[in-house]
Amino acid sequence: MTAYDDLAAHIAEYHDLLCILNTLKWDMRAMMPAAGAASRGNQLATLSKLAKSIFISDETAGLLDAAEAEIAGADADSYQARALRQTRDAYEIQRRIPADLVGRMAALGPESEAVWAQAKNDNDFARFKPYLKRMLALNLELAEAIGYDDHPFDALIRQFEPGMTAARLLGIFAELKAGILPLLERVVAVDAPLPFDLWAAEYDLASQKKLCHELTALIGFDFARGRLDSAPHPFEISFTRDDVRITTRYDANYLPMSLFAALHEAGHGLYEQNIAPGLTRTALTADFLGQYAVGGASFGAHEFSSRLWENQIGRSREFWRLHFARLKARFPQQLAAADAELFYRAVNRVRPSLIRVEADEVTYNLHIMLRAEIEMALLEGAIAVDDLPEIWNAKMQDYLGLKPPDDRRGVLQDVHWSFGGFGNFPCYTIGNIMAAQALAAAQAQMPNLAAMLAEGDYQPLLAWLTENFYRHGRAYSTDELLTRVSGEGLNPAPLLNYLERKYNDLYGLS
Amino acid sequence: MTAYDDLAAHIAEYHDLLCILNTLKWDMRAMMPAAGAASRGNQLATLSKLAKSIFISDETAGLLDAAEAEIAGADADSYQARALRQTRDAYEIQRRIPADLVGRMAALGPESEAVWAQAKNDNDFARFKPYLKRMLALNLELAEAIGYDDHPFDALIRQFEPGMTAARLLGIFAELKAGILPLLERVVAVDAPLPFDLWAAEYDLASQKKLCHELTALIGFDFARGRLDSAPHPFEISFTRDDVRITTRYDANYLPMSLFAALHEAGHGLYEQNIAPGLTRTALTADFLGQYAVGGASFGAHEFSSRLWENQIGRSREFWRLHFARLKARFPQQLAAADAELFYRAVNRVRPSLIRVEADEVTYNLHIMLRAEIEMALLEGAIAVDDLPEIWNAKMQDYLGLKPPDDRRGVLQDVHWSFGGFGNFPCYTIGNIMAAQALAAAQAQMPNLAAMLAEGDYQPLLAWLTENFYRHGRAYSTDELLTRVSGEGLNPAPLLNYLERKYNDLYGLS
Repeated sequence: MTAYDDLAAHIAEYHDLLCILNTLKWDMRAMMPAAGAASRGNQLATLSKLAKSIFISDETAGLLDAAEAEIAGADADSYQARALRQTRDAYEIQRRIPADLVGRMAALGPESEAVWAQAKNDNDFARFKPYLKRMLALNLELAEAIGYDDHPFDALIRQFEPGMTAARLLGIFAELKAGILPLLERVVAVDAPLPFDLWAAEYDLASQKKLCHELTALIGFDFARGRLDSAPHPFEISFTRDDVRITTRYDANYLPMSLFAALHEAGHGLYEQNIAPGLTRTALTADFLGQYAVGGASFGAHEFSSRLWENQIGRSREFWRLHFARLKARFPQQLAAADAELFYRAVNRVRPSLIRVEADEVTYNLHIMLRAEIEMALLEGAIAVDDLPEIWNAKMQDYLGLKPPDDRRGVLQDVHWSFGGFGNFPCYTIGNIMAAQALAAAQAQMPNLAAMLAEGDYQPLLAWLTENFYRHGRAYSTDELLTRVSGEGLNPAPLLNYLERKYNDLYGLS
Repeated sequence: MTAYDDLAAHIAEYHDLLCILNTLKWDMRAMMPAAGAASRGNQLATLSKLAKSIFISDETAGLLDAAEAEIAGADADSYQARALRQTRDAYEIQRRIPADLVGRMAALGPESEAVWAQAKNDNDFARFKPYLKRMLALNLELAEAIGYDDHPFDALIRQFEPGMTAARLLGIFAELKAGILPLLERVVAVDAPLPFDLWAAEYDLASQKKLCHELTALIGFDFARGRLDSAPHPFEISFTRDDVRITTRYDANYLPMSLFAALHEAGHGLYEQNIAPGLTRTALTADFLGQYAVGGASFGAHEFSSRLWENQIGRSREFWRLHFARLKARFPQQLAAADAELFYRAVNRVRPSLIRVEADEVTYNLHIMLRAEIEMALLEGAIAVDDLPEIWNAKMQDYLGLKPPDDRRGVLQDVHWSFGGFGNFPCYTIGNIMAAQALAAAQAQMPNLAAMLAEGDYQPLLAWLTENFYRHGRAYSTDELLTRVSGEGLNPAPLLNYLERKYNDLYGLS
C-alpha cells in the first residue's frame, strides 16, 4: 500500500458514512412516519458528529501529510492531485469552524424554522425578525471562520460553489438583468390566456406516476440503479452512482407539477449515475466541507443538469411533439381538446408572479437575484433585517412590476434563511447559465443533435454530457468544465440567447 | 451527571448507530434497487465495524466500571441494574470474540450463501458440503469464544435466547413430540380436501394491500409510528418504538400469504411499538451481543408476539367470523361460494409437508426440532456433514412420514446454515410455546377476553400484553416474563392443550 492508498481507504470509509447520512435523509423525506422524526434527529446528530470527528481527526491529518509528500512531484492536474487538494481544503476549513458554532446553528435551526413557519402562516414578519437576526449573526461568524478576502458572502458561497464571489456574481446579474428585463416587458405586453384551462380536469395519480416513470426512463434514468418515489418537497439524493433516488410530487389537477419535477430530479440523477465508477467512495464524489455525499462539481453544476433536462429538453416543443401522445393515451378525456402545441404553450407561459417556486424560465432568475442581492447587503451591513419587507417589495416592483400584498407572499416565502442557509440561492442561476452554455457547446460539436432530440434519441446527448461533465465527478470546477468544452468560463450570454430565441418565437415577437 | 448517566449517554449514541444499521437493512430488503447491493455492503461493513469498536472500546469499559461502582448497593432487580448487567455481559463476550473470526465469518458468508443457492437450484448437496463444513468449524470457534459449560450449542443459542440450553431444549422437544405426533396421526387419518379450491381465483394486489393495512390496524398496529411495505422475505424491524417497519409479500392467487405474513409481522411490530418510552436508546431495547436494535426479551420472545397475533388470534374461527365479510367485500366474485367457516378451515388445514415455511401449526414445530437436533449433533461431532441428506430424510420419515424426493426439498431448503446461522431455529418453537402460555394466562386473568375477541375488541389483550410483556423491553428473560404472569417458566403443556383443543374440534376428533 502506498500512502495515497492508505488515505484513500480511510476516505472510503468516511464516504460510506456520508452515504449512510444520505440514506437516512432520503428515508426521512420520502418514507418515514411522522412520529419517527425525533429518533431520526438523534440518529442524524450522532452519525454527523461521528463522521466529522473522523474527518478532522489527527489520523486524517497524518494520512494527508504522508499522501501529499508522496504525490508532491506528480501531475498537479491528475484526479489524485485534485482529490488531495480538495480533501486538504475541506480539512483545513472544517478544522477552523468551531464545534461550538456548529452546535449553536444546529440548535437554533429547528426552532427558527418553526417560528418562521408560524410567522409565514400569520403574516407576521416581526415575530420572525429576532431569529433572522441571530441566524445572520451566526452566518457572519461562519464566514469569519471559513475566511474570505473581500466579502463575507464569498466565504458562504464557497460551501456551495467554490470559486464564486459576490463581485463576480453582481457582474453576472447586471448582464442578466440587461437581457431579461426588456424581454419580459415585451412578452408581458402580448401575453394572453390560453383558449382554455387544461388544469381544471382531474389527472389520476396512478397514471401520472406511470408517466413520470416512462419519461424519466426515456431520457436515460437507470431504474436498475435507482428509484422514483413521491415526497412533499421533491429532491434527488444518491448513495453512490449505483443507488440514486429521485422523488416527485403529485397534484390531481396540475399535471405539470409531477412531470417537470420528475424530469428535474432525473436530471440530477443522470449526473450521479454517470460519474466514472472509479470515483466511487473517493473525495471526488463527496462534498467534505458540507459533509454530503454528492458527485457533481458544485451545487450550481448539479443544477445545470437538472435544469437542462427539465427545461431545455423537457419544456421544448420537440419533446412534446413527440411525447404528447403518451399523455393523451393516459388522459384521453382530459386532453381531448388539446394538442402538443397547446400543451407546449401551457407549460411555458411567462407571467411575473410573486412566488419563486412557481416562476417560469424568464422570470425565475429575477427571483434569485433579488434574494442574493439582499443576502449580500445584509452580510455587509448595508441594510438591516428590520427594513427587509420594504426592500423586498421595492425590488419586486423593480424586477417584476408586482407589489406583494403581504409578507407571506413576500419576504417570508422561502424557508432557507430560517434554518440559516445563506449563500445558496445563486446556484440555481449558475445552473441555468451553465445549462445554456453546455447545450450550446453540444450543438456546436454535434451537428445532428437537434435532429436526434426531435426523434427522441437522448442517448447521444447523455453520452456527450457524461464525457464532458458527469464522469469527472467533482474533479473540475464549474469554470473548468465549461472552459474545457467552450473555451470560456461561466457566461450568461448563451442563456440570454436561448431565452430570446425561445420566447420571441413562442410569443411571435421576432 | 452521575456515572450511570454518563454510561447511558454513551450507550444512547451506540444505540443510534444500531438503529441506523436497521434502517440500512430495511431499505436493502424493501426498497433498494438491485445494483445498490455492493455499495450497501460497504456501508454496512463500515458502520458495523465502527459501532463495534465504540462498544468494545476502553471508554465503554471505564464508563461501565464507574456505573457499576455507583450502583453496587442499589436494587439488583431494577431496570438500571438489569441494563448494566446485560451491557457488561455483552461487553465481555464481544471482547472475547476475535475480530479475525468475525472477519472470516463475514467474508465467507456471501460466497457460501451464493454457492448454497446454486446447489439448491441444481439439487447438488456435494457442492455445498465444503462450505457447510467451514461454517460449522467457524461456529465451533465462535462457541469456544463465547464460552459454555456443557454443549457448544449452548453458546450459540445464547446469542438469540439467553438462558436456554441444548439439554433443556431436548426435554422440551420430547414433551412436544409426545403430544404432537399422536395428534398429527389422528388428524391425517381423517383429513380430506375442502369442497373447492379457494386459491384458484385471482386476488388483485391493490385490494390485498388495503386488506393488509386494515387488518394490521385493527389489531392495533399504529401507522402514525410505522409503515407496511412489501418485501420478498417479510420481516419486521424498528428504529425505536416510534418508527416500526413491517413488510408482507403478495401472491395473486394465494391470498393467505399476504394476510398472515402481515399479521405475523404486525405481531412483531406491536411488541416494539409498546415498549415503555423511557427504554428508548437504552440497553433494554438493543441486543448488544448481536449488535442489533431490537426491543423484545429474546428472539423467541419476539416470535411469541408474532405467532400469537398470526395464529392464536389471526387463525381463529372468531377472527374470521367477524372479518370474513371484509374479504368478501373486496373479492365478491372470488369468494362468492365461500363463507367464514370454509375460509377458517382453508387456512388451518393440517398436512405433513416437506417445506418448513409452508407448514401448519401442528407440523411446524416438527420441522424445527428436526433442524435443532441436527445442529446439536453436528456441533458435538455425533454426525458428519457428509451424512446429512440421509439423516435429514430419516428424520422426515420419523416425524412427518414423508421422504424428500430430492435435497432441494430436503437438507438444502433453508438459507440459515449457508451464512453460518446456527442456534437460531429453536426460537420459533419457543415463541409458539410462549404464545400459548401467554394467552392461557390472559384468559385466566381476563374472564371476558374470549367475548371481547369475538367482538373484535383487541385493545384489552394488547393492553394486557403491553403491561405484562411488551413494556419491559429486554429487562426480563423469557422465563422471568412467563413466571411473572403464570407462576412458571417455559412449559410446552399449554401449546399442546391449545393444539389438541383447536384441531380436535376442527377435525371432529373429540
